[in-house]
Amino acid sequence: MTKPLKVGMIGYGFMARTHSNAYSQVSHFFDVPYKPVLQVVCGLEEKEAKAFADKWGYQSYTTDYRKVLEDDNIDVVDICVPNNMHAEIAMAAAKAGKAICCEKPLALNAAQAQEMVDVVEKAGVPNLVSFNYRRVPAVTLAKQLIDEGRLGRIFHYRANFLQDWTISTQVPQGGMATWRLDVKAAGSGVTGDLLAHCIDTAMWHNGPITSVCAMTETFVKERMHAESGKVEPVGIDDACTFFCRFDNGSLGNFESTRYARGHKALYTFEINGEHASIAWDLHDLHRLSYFDHRDDSIVRGWRSVHITDSDMPYMDKWWVPGLQIGYEHTFIHQAAEFLEAMAKGQPASPSFREALATQKVCDAVLASGRSQQWEKIEH
Amino acid sequence: MTKPLKVGMIGYGFMARTHSNAYSQVSHFFDVPYKPVLQVVCGLEEKEAKAFADKWGYQSYTTDYRKVLEDDNIDVVDICVPNNMHAEIAMAAAKAGKAICCEKPLALNAAQAQEMVDVVEKAGVPNLVSFNYRRVPAVTLAKQLIDEGRLGRIFHYRANFLQDWTISTQVPQGGMATWRLDVKAAGSGVTGDLLAHCIDTAMWHNGPITSVCAMTETFVKERMHAESGKVEPVGIDDACTFFCRFDNGSLGNFESTRYARGHKALYTFEINGEHASIAWDLHDLHRLSYFDHRDDSIVRGWRSVHITDSDMPYMDKWWVPGLQIGYEHTFIHQAAEFLEAMAKGQPASPSFREALATQKVCDAVLASGRSQQWEKIEH
Amino acid sequence: MTKPLKVGMIGYGFMARTHSNAYSQVSHFFDVPYKPVLQVVCGLEEKEAKAFADKWGYQSYTTDYRKVLEDDNIDVVDICVPNNMHAEIAMAAAKAGKAICCEKPLALNAAQAQEMVDVVEKAGVPNLVSFNYRRVPAVTLAKQLIDEGRLGRIFHYRANFLQDWTISTQVPQGGMATWRLDVKAAGSGVTGDLLAHCIDTAMWHNGPITSVCAMTETFVKERMHAESGKVEPVGIDDACTFFCRFDNGSLGNFESTRYARGHKALYTFEINGEHASIAWDLHDLHRLSYFDHRDDSIVRGWRSVHITDSDMPYMDKWWVPGLQIGYEHTFIHQAAEFLEAMAKGQPASPSFREALATQKVCDAVLASGRSQQWEKIEH
Amino acid sequence: MTKPLKVGMIGYGFMARTHSNAYSQVSHFFDVPYKPVLQVVCGLEEKEAKAFADKWGYQSYTTDYRKVLEDDNIDVVDICVPNNMHAEIAMAAAKAGKAICCEKPLALNAAQAQEMVDVVEKAGVPNLVSFNYRRVPAVTLAKQLIDEGRLGRIFHYRANFLQDWTISTQVPQGGMATWRLDVKAAGSGVTGDLLAHCIDTAMWHNGPITSVCAMTETFVKERMHAESGKVEPVGIDDACTFFCRFDNGSLGNFESTRYARGHKALYTFEINGEHASIAWDLHDLHRLSYFDHRDDSIVRGWRSVHITDSDMPYMDKWWVPGLQIGYEHTFIHQAAEFLEAMAKGQPASPSFREALATQKVCDAVLASGRSQQWEKIEH
Repeated sequence: MTKPLKVGMIGYGFMARTHSNAYSQVSHFFDVPYKPVLQVVCGLEEKEAKAFADKWGYQSYTTDYRKVLEDDNIDVVDICVPNNMHAEIAMAAAKAGKAICCEKPLALNAAQAQEMVDVVEKAGVPNLVSFNYRRVPAVTLAKQLIDEGRLGRIFHYRANFLQDWTISTQVPQGGMATWRLDVKAAGSGVTGDLLAHCIDTAMWHNGPITSVCAMTETFVKERMHAESGKVEPVGIDDACTFFCRFDNGSLGNFESTRYARGHKALYTFEINGEHASIAWDLHDLHRLSYFDHRDDSIVRGWRSVHITDSDMPYMDKWWVPGLQIGYEHTFIHQAAEFLEAMAKGQPASPSFREALATQKVCDAVLASGRSQQWEKIEH
Repeated sequence: MTKPLKVGMIGYGFMARTHSNAYSQVSHFFDVPYKPVLQVVCGLEEKEAKAFADKWGYQSYTTDYRKVLEDDNIDVVDICVPNNMHAEIAMAAAKAGKAICCEKPLALNAAQAQEMVDVVEKAGVPNLVSFNYRRVPAVTLAKQLIDEGRLGRIFHYRANFLQDWTISTQVPQGGMATWRLDVKAAGSGVTGDLLAHCIDTAMWHNGPITSVCAMTETFVKERMHAESGKVEPVGIDDACTFFCRFDNGSLGNFESTRYARGHKALYTFEINGEHASIAWDLHDLHRLSYFDHRDDSIVRGWRSVHITDSDMPYMDKWWVPGLQIGYEHTFIHQAAEFLEAMAKGQPASPSFREALATQKVCDAVLASGRSQQWEKIEH
Repeated sequence: MTKPLKVGMIGYGFMARTHSNAYSQVSHFFDVPYKPVLQVVCGLEEKEAKAFADKWGYQSYTTDYRKVLEDDNIDVVDICVPNNMHAEIAMAAAKAGKAICCEKPLALNAAQAQEMVDVVEKAGVPNLVSFNYRRVPAVTLAKQLIDEGRLGRIFHYRANFLQDWTISTQVPQGGMATWRLDVKAAGSGVTGDLLAHCIDTAMWHNGPITSVCAMTETFVKERMHAESGKVEPVGIDDACTFFCRFDNGSLGNFESTRYARGHKALYTFEINGEHASIAWDLHDLHRLSYFDHRDDSIVRGWRSVHITDSDMPYMDKWWVPGLQIGYEHTFIHQAAEFLEAMAKGQPASPSFREALATQKVCDAVLASGRSQQWEKIEH
Repeated sequence: MTKPLKVGMIGYGFMARTHSNAYSQVSHFFDVPYKPVLQVVCGLEEKEAKAFADKWGYQSYTTDYRKVLEDDNIDVVDICVPNNMHAEIAMAAAKAGKAICCEKPLALNAAQAQEMVDVVEKAGVPNLVSFNYRRVPAVTLAKQLIDEGRLGRIFHYRANFLQDWTISTQVPQGGMATWRLDVKAAGSGVTGDLLAHCIDTAMWHNGPITSVCAMTETFVKERMHAESGKVEPVGIDDACTFFCRFDNGSLGNFESTRYARGHKALYTFEINGEHASIAWDLHDLHRLSYFDHRDDSIVRGWRSVHITDSDMPYMDKWWVPGLQIGYEHTFIHQAAEFLEAMAKGQPASPSFREALATQKVCDAVLASGRSQQWEKIEH
């Protein structure tokens, strides 16, 4: 009989929806060791918290996250609030002995992330950072192909994350919907929000990044703040490009912007190895492009692999060949792995410690954008 | 406060999963007038039925569908069993006053479908046939674009449904996994299983099909039967191509096969109008291709519309721009519309009556394959 | 030292340009046994003929094709005039002992084509019909892959040729630019103009077509005639769909129309075999799509083969990997093969006799469109 | 009557073929003021030079380029030899009063390029550098769309040029086929060979690049030299990534490598503007991707514009809609424009002076790769 696992959700925004959905769905598709129970949701506005609880079937709601931590019933605390609140809540949750799932980026900066790692590891609680794109079946398959050695020596890793939703100068900063444009809430712009995903995946696929050189830009210099109602300077990076060197000798090229007209969430990567290459993009997340130079030359070409067969990562849990899954499923896969790791007493991945490594790269990227110099990263 | 709506599920196979998921999820994303409750699941094997009930949270299970119909608690009967059992169960459910959701194709043939329509309409119960592909946002958008008159006069409607899973002669017929190859259980092969979808969508988009001319083929003439353990003749159509005329003067070309190596569930359609054309395929279901001749000539081309923004059909219920949904969501959309129609006392679409029209076309197609003549359809 | 081969060109329209270009270019890229010399061009209007001669470097021009045939200097007669003039000129040229390259379709109908074959074969002159799409490297590669047995047993052959240039009712029929809409000049509409290409390639790839069943339509029933200046009934087929059976047991599905908004010259084909499938389209003619089921399942997908490497058909003659050729090159390849066959005293392909087979299928298709019955073809 | 223009070709390699073809073909398709006459070809090996002359119809050949310059008959000198010979020949040709077409990159470095500009401008001779990719119709169309203001303010310009032909350590450096790997002959690796194209197009499209920051790498540190027969250090850049700032405030990101498995000559660019974006790649050079945010939102998407209609740049000269041209045509377009500019006494573009600007950026990129600092460019 599957044991219940009681979840306290901190936040009721976009990410709280994806995580609540994951906890609702995971046992319908995976044979998980625990059955998540949506126990309590916490958010600033009582009315919103109640509506969220009703929608998702949380048994109660609160506006004070400390109440969640104090509740002995709660097994897991899931943190889906703006970045500037991660550290306080996560460290308190660790001290309260809760397992923790925290949205990315882990912290506002590497120093803060380090402190969180120290506290969490000292407390010995299960911990996970929600770099969900690792759990796209195609992205997991890429990892598998690399680990099998199919690509041979890696020469290049390239990743972009392109959006276009802040081109209008009328988009405000701050507040519930646009806190990602407010440097105080977000810590940084595209670097922490988008490149953090690219960096997490890249280091998972290709090992540590050891030095970076970046160019950053803020195209719109001031925006109305949704809370103050005043036009205030914009402190985030609207665009960030960096190149880097990986520990394995390969070269990286990364770019993110919210000013690439025509792209909503175009996270792409391409990996070029001696024998084979891989490419993927989030706008068609159910496909992986693969080129293998060892194919017969007259039928050699990029293969568009439709990731729906049951021998593909996670896909035995879903439907039948040809029928695609989408974005939300990455969180369900993540939940399954978190539950499984918890049951085994093993660390889930990416842990806070792994997310700290990503944070260090983000810090170095932002520092390089300021210094206009190469920056080294110690892992 | 949302009223509960108690669901009795008949079947525990692939389709029962998609429907159970829909009932579980619909209230998390849609503001529906009823909250579905998974009350009872019915299937032939008790052990399987119990496992299915556990997985999906059904409160009970049974091996006798009549128990479900006799239960006054049950509001909706959902029929997810092989085609040859649809009529008996659906007519009994109607007589028991239940709302009915029935998997497609509605019946083994049009005569049977007519009988079902008569019984269901006499009983006056809400009824829906699960032609779920109408509820792919891109397919719904296509309907909207046509209805807005963007295409102008329609010249051509083309649809294919290509698979490759029965090429091996070792695939058996009959039984739980392969009843679709057994003519007694399925009624027909690709015509009822796959072309029925194409025909339903086509008539929804483009109006009645009035005459057809078909070619059918059975490539593998005999297969082991999973139940008898004996090699038996294959009675289904492995492949079926037909062309047709629509009532509006346009020409249709339809093809389905399970012998198209490289295609898993490649349902595609293309509509060519005087001013604009539309194309879609199920392998990238979150995109719609659109060509508009009225565009400036130097920037005129097929547009790949990524259907994720909140102004797209259904997409305000899901995530944020750029993040795709998948196959299972079509059933959730269908459930939402069924519940809403029920609350309003309006017919849901496609009703049994609409599915009868599709059945008539399927019958005509199969008849034409045998007669090698054009066949007319009276609607 | 390469011998000169003197060419008399009959016609100065679109096809005369492609053929003149081929003769000009062939010796720059291929080691051909003859060097074509553009000797004389013949056309109805003297001024136009002169301009064409100047442009392409023909040494003279004439308005009377008989002068070309009487000229002992001329080795090859190349026929690039409307279809209704092919027979007369070709038979006279054969009787005059000239080698003949004739544009497709060979004749207005199979009876006329048969007569031409008889005369040409009796005269024993080299003869070729310009089904140039065989000479797209990707199409030639497809033939090679089929002949190597990579596909295994063939189940399906599908081809479309879609255009959109006659949707406007203002397009006239007849005259220099639009003779293809005038049944007297063209013999038929899309069947002879476009499906003839598809049929030629299909029978080259997949063997004889033995029976057909067709649907034809004329959407615009009358058009201004460019010569008479009067509105006259339209006698051609605007659209034609047919399915068929090949001698090898596979099924064919063909469609052509000039009312498919968004497609200019979208000739596509797809071949589904037991082990592998192939797809191609003329709008990206330098690519071949290939799917091989024998690939490792986790990296199995449609391969987009970019046909530019030197081990691809014809491509050792052109540039370097990655750099594509285009439409006109098909005629250069055809010229190279015609010259080579001539030097060896072997028949070039497709010969008049092969084109007769295609004409028979076209006749059967048109007959079936009228009779609304299946029609058999004797080869 | 069109005047003859006598061409002296220096070189008989790959580029000499593309230029010879252009001179042969240009008057067949364009109404040019001069008819090029292939007068003499010059190359190091007499046998090769003779064979080349025979193939292309040059009236004579020589092994001494000075003979070409001394010949009063020669109007144009076309320089298609390795980069280290450009300066000497071009300056001597200018002094001899010849019009000059020179392959790119113009020189080994900016200082040398400056000297060449000075000499050529003093001599007042027509001059052109063969950045042929500007003359791909889709690339020219991109320029037109930008100049029309369709994109609005530009935020990002991204270009890559990816190849994979030097991954094997067995590829030698130096000699006829692989001089591009020999730093003495080539001056640099991917920067001068490939990025020079990207930079030329980018500055044509988007204005001056004012500062750059680069990362370069040589993956294979030593290779056999084809001339010495000895293993020697490799002096070129195998890969180069740089980001930059344009004078108009937009950001650039450029990458080139010969170690991107699966790409033969994948030159791509993408331009993101306030209202619209453009993307293109050389592997499908006959298409332009265009996204316009001002489209109706429900049919907004990337448009794949098939560049074959007669209202597209250069395409009125070629075939009919739907029928694509290829790589070689860029040189024909270039020749047409060179002849026309010459007849009008106007500078052709890109002139030596424009190519000097590109050379300055290349120099800065290489310098930055060494210094690991940003480098500024004065134009």
